[in-house]
This record gives sequence, structure tokens and C-alpha cells, in this order.
Amino acid sequence: MEFNDPKLKEYIDQLVDEKLSEKTKEFSAQFDTIQNTLATLKAAPQTTEKVTMLVTSFELDKIMPAFIIANGAASFGMDVTLFFTLWGINALKDKSVYSGKTIKEKLITMMLPSTPQTTTISRLNMLGVGTEMMKMMMKENNIETLPDLIDLSVEMGAKLIACQMTMGMMGITTEEIRKDVEFGGVATYIEEASDATITLTF
Amino acid sequence: MEFNDPKLKEYIDQLVDEKLSEKTKEFSAQFDTIQNTLATLKAAPQTTEKVTMLVTSFELDKIMPAFIIANGAASFGMDVTLFFTLWGINALKDKSVYSGKTIKEKLITMMLPSTPQTTTISRLNMLGVGTEMMKMMMKENNIETLPDLIDLSVEMGAKLIACQMTMGMMGITTEEIRKDVEFGGVATYIEEASDATITLTF
Amino acid sequence: MEFNDPKLKEYIDQLVDEKLSEKTKEFSAQFDTIQNTLATLKAAPQTTEKVTMLVTSFELDKIMPAFIIANGAASFGMDVTLFFTLWGINALKDKSVYSGKTIKEKLITMMLPSTPQTTTISRLNMLGVGTEMMKMMMKENNIETLPDLIDLSVEMGAKLIACQMTMGMMGITTEEIRKDVEFGGVATYIEEASDATITLTF
Repeated sequence: MEFNDPKLKEYIDQLVDEKLSEKTKEFSAQFDTIQNTLATLKAAPQTTEKVTMLVTSFELDKIMPAFIIANGAASFGMDVTLFFTLWGINALKDKSVYSGKTIKEKLITMMLPSTPQTTTISRLNMLGVGTEMMKMMMKENNIETLPDLIDLSVEMGAKLIACQMTMGMMGITTEEIRKDVEFGGVATYIEEASDATITLTF
Repeated sequence: MEFNDPKLKEYIDQLVDEKLSEKTKEFSAQFDTIQNTLATLKAAPQTTEKVTMLVTSFELDKIMPAFIIANGAASFGMDVTLFFTLWGINALKDKSVYSGKTIKEKLITMMLPSTPQTTTISRLNMLGVGTEMMKMMMKENNIETLPDLIDLSVEMGAKLIACQMTMGMMGITTEEIRKDVEFGGVATYIEEASDATITLTF
Repeated sequence: MEFNDPKLKEYIDQLVDEKLSEKTKEFSAQFDTIQNTLATLKAAPQTTEKVTMLVTSFELDKIMPAFIIANGAASFGMDVTLFFTLWGINALKDKSVYSGKTIKEKLITMMLPSTPQTTTISRLNMLGVGTEMMKMMMKENNIETLPDLIDLSVEMGAKLIACQMTMGMMGITTEEIRKDVEFGGVATYIEEASDATITLTF
């Protein structure tokens, strides 16, 4: 027999091919699974960024930065949620209603700003002079008024949520609140904040 | 020699099998390593969610939302840490102690609420009338009192930390602080906040 | 021919090896690709941790915790950015300038602290007595003064940003602001906060 017999070579070739192709199928399946998992893992962090704010104050100089950041973030395509609780809920008021309220609820209604238009600043208010001055300076610098900032945020897709517990406690009715506002409790806030990239308090 | 010699065929068969199983073992080991790494990577984001709060205020309307969120988050199985610094430390007081303090420390002790029961609200306090009204409205709406909210948070596993620097500065002794409170500095706060999903300030 | 001819054995061996290595090259290439992807995925979360703070207050008891946390975080190797807006911008003032300002701007300049040295506390200020007492107690406890805390933060690499909109609105000139401060708008803040591990408001 010739040592370099082509028949021998061919035979071995074929044998290896056969034996391997069985194994190859197995490997290919495993490779596919791994590549799928990798694709999922790489895709994961590409979720939309989100800002969630907790607003407990009602003053112009607290609400204004909240909405300026909300509108900025929304314009960058971020999800934006603002949860209003305690004094903060006054930023969502459309009007004040007195009928059907207890005396305590009427007193609280009277003492709090009936709409964002009438809110004051937290420092240097000086019986309203400071607030008026600040509003004038905002106007001179082409900064939107607070009501405009709030309207704009809704137009840009920000979600405004009013705290139901606060409403119950202060006797605020849904009639007094803007129509584009959702209602929720602490569970709603925590859920919204859990997947937020940025969490802020005002 | 006959090429189709069954002995030669058998020999070749065996040889291919051996070499192949060697290679296959190698590949299997590699697959195992990869699958382990993938499992680790997929498991990574499934850590417990965590809320860390920095409390610098002592007023009822700042402390109350902090503990309502703390208790809500804890009930969802989240880790909760509250770090109390500056005025905030008054929320952790059990009583006020005067003996052994300097005059300045006594003055500060006198001017700050001796326990969370006696704290006031930050707006519309009106010499205490507003605070009493708010407490009444909380009661009428079945909202726990502040001391109850604090006790509940501890029962639910929230970690309360008192800022040692503030205690040193204001002359507050460990004797004045609740027994279930830990003590720590700015490093403790930063460590707690680093792995938090939600970071808040009150 | 002798069947156990070592030359034949060697030849067959070589043939099988060749054939196998050809087939397995493909697999090896796939393994390499997968391992590279895994390495990238594992490396991803090892970015530097970052704290971004939004400072809207000017009082000593708001600015001080902000800078104590800033300096603590920086000392742990974290990235630190502080964005100062509204009243907060006063923490960045070097001096007050009156010439060239409108009457309203002069009034605001007059009413706000001209430097961090002269800022007050937000509670128990008592016409300045409380602030002085707090400064004395800080000194007795070897806590740096506010101006020292600010200088230290810059030395440690914290980035201080002044809100341009606030400066325009309040008529604050760059001349009045520390030299080591950058200027930016809401977009700058959102960008800085987007990749932060900890976001705080003061």
C-alpha cells in the first residue's frame, strides 16, 4: 500500500466531519443562547432617564425651580413625575372652594394661596413687596410665570400627582385641583421614584 | 494491506473519538465559565432597593413626610436609612437633659423641641395654633402621630442614624437620644447613600 | 505492511489534528468574541460615583451640610458637583457690587448676604444672636467655617456652578462671584445630575 493513499485521507476527513457535525449542532445552539443573553444584557441600561420630584413647599422660590428643572428634563426626552404633598399641593390648585367644608378646613383654605398665581416667596417676602419684585424681575428676564411653567410642563408630558392623604387631611376637594392632575398615595410616589435616575425634594 | 481492513478502520475511529472528546471537554469548560459569568451579570441588578434620607429640619411638616415615605418604602421590602443632622436630630430625642451642659448648650436645648411630640410646623404655626390644628386634622384622618410613625419605622427595620458632629456641636448627649438609634458621621451617610436607589433631603 | 507501523499512526494522527483544528477555529473565534463582550459588560458599572447637589438656599444651616457632604464625598474619590440657583448663589459671592445696577437689583443686593461669612441660620437666628452662637459652637468643635469649607471643596476638586438665569434675574455680575466658579443653565444641571449616584437638594 502507498503510504500517502488519498483514499485513507478522504476516509479520515469524512469520519471527522461526521463526528464533529453532531457536536457542532450542540455548540451552535449554546452559542445562540449565549448571544441572546448578551444582547439582552447590553440593551438593559438603555432605558429612558427619569426625574421624580417630591414637592412639599408652596412658595414661588421652591415651586419655580421644580418646574424649571421639570421642563428642562422633559425637553431632553426624560420622563418627569412631580408628586405634590402637604403645602406643595397648593401649586396644583385652580381655585378655592369653601362650601361644604368644616370650619378648620375653611380656615386652612383661607390661609393658603388659592392658586399658584398668588403664592409668595419664602424669604424677603416683606408683606408681598419681595414677591412682586421677584415676579417683575422674572418678567424682565423673559422667564415664564409660575402658571405658565406649570402649563408648559403638562404640555411636555410631565406627570403631576396630587397626594390623596394631604387632600383628605386639609379638606381639599378634587374640584379645586387642575383637571390634568392624577391622584395617588405614598405607594404611587415610591413606585415613581424607584426607577428614577434623579430624585429631588422641594 | 487492504484499506478496508476493519482493524485499521477501528483504530482511526478510536483516534478521532479521543481527540474530539479532548477538544469537547475544553469547549464545555469554556461554556460553563461563560454561563456562570452571565448568571452573575444577570443577578447583579436584582439587589434590594434602598431609600436614604438626609434630615436637617425638625419641623412636623418635614419630619412627617420623611417617616411616611420611610414606612411606605419599608413595607415594600426596601432598605431604609434616615440620617439626622443639625436641627433634624431633634426628631430622635427622647427627652432634654440640662445638667452638665455649658450655658450655650443649655440655651440651645431650651430653644429646640425636647421630643418629636412638641415640634411645630414650618408655616402657619401662629404661636402653636396651626400646629395643633394640623395634629387634630391628622387624627381625624387616621394618620399616625409623629412619635407613632417613628416607632413604626424602627419596627419595620428602618435604620435611624444620629450625626455625631451635630451632637458634639449642640452638646446633645446620647442619654437624650432614643435607644434604637445608631451614631455616625458624614462618612456613614455617604456610604449609606452610595448604594441607594432613592436619595432625599428633608 | 505492518498495521502498527508507527509511521502510519503518526500520519493518521496528523490528519485528524488538521481537520479538527480547522473546524474548531470557528468556535475559538466565537469564544473570543463572547469573552470580550463579557469583559465590557463587567467593566461597565465600575464608573466613578458622583454626587450632584442643587442649592437654592443661602442660610448657613443649609449651605454647611451641603459642603460637609461635598468634602466627604470628594475625600472618598467621588465626583462632586454643586449647582447654585436662586438664593443659593449667595454662597458663591466674593463681594457685593452696586454700581451699574438698577434700583431693584441694588435693593436685592443690599438685602442678601454679600459673602458666605455674613450669612445667617434659617431658624433661631434671633437678630443674629443664634447665628453667632452657632458659629462659636462650630469653632469650639473644630468645624471649619463656611468660607473654609467652600475653599476646601474647590481644592478637593468639587465643581461649583452658578446659575446664569438667577444671575440675570437678580442682576448679579460675574465680578461678584468667586473666580473658581463655572457658569451654566438648567441644561448643565440636568446633565450633571443624569449620571450622579446621589442627587440632593438644599
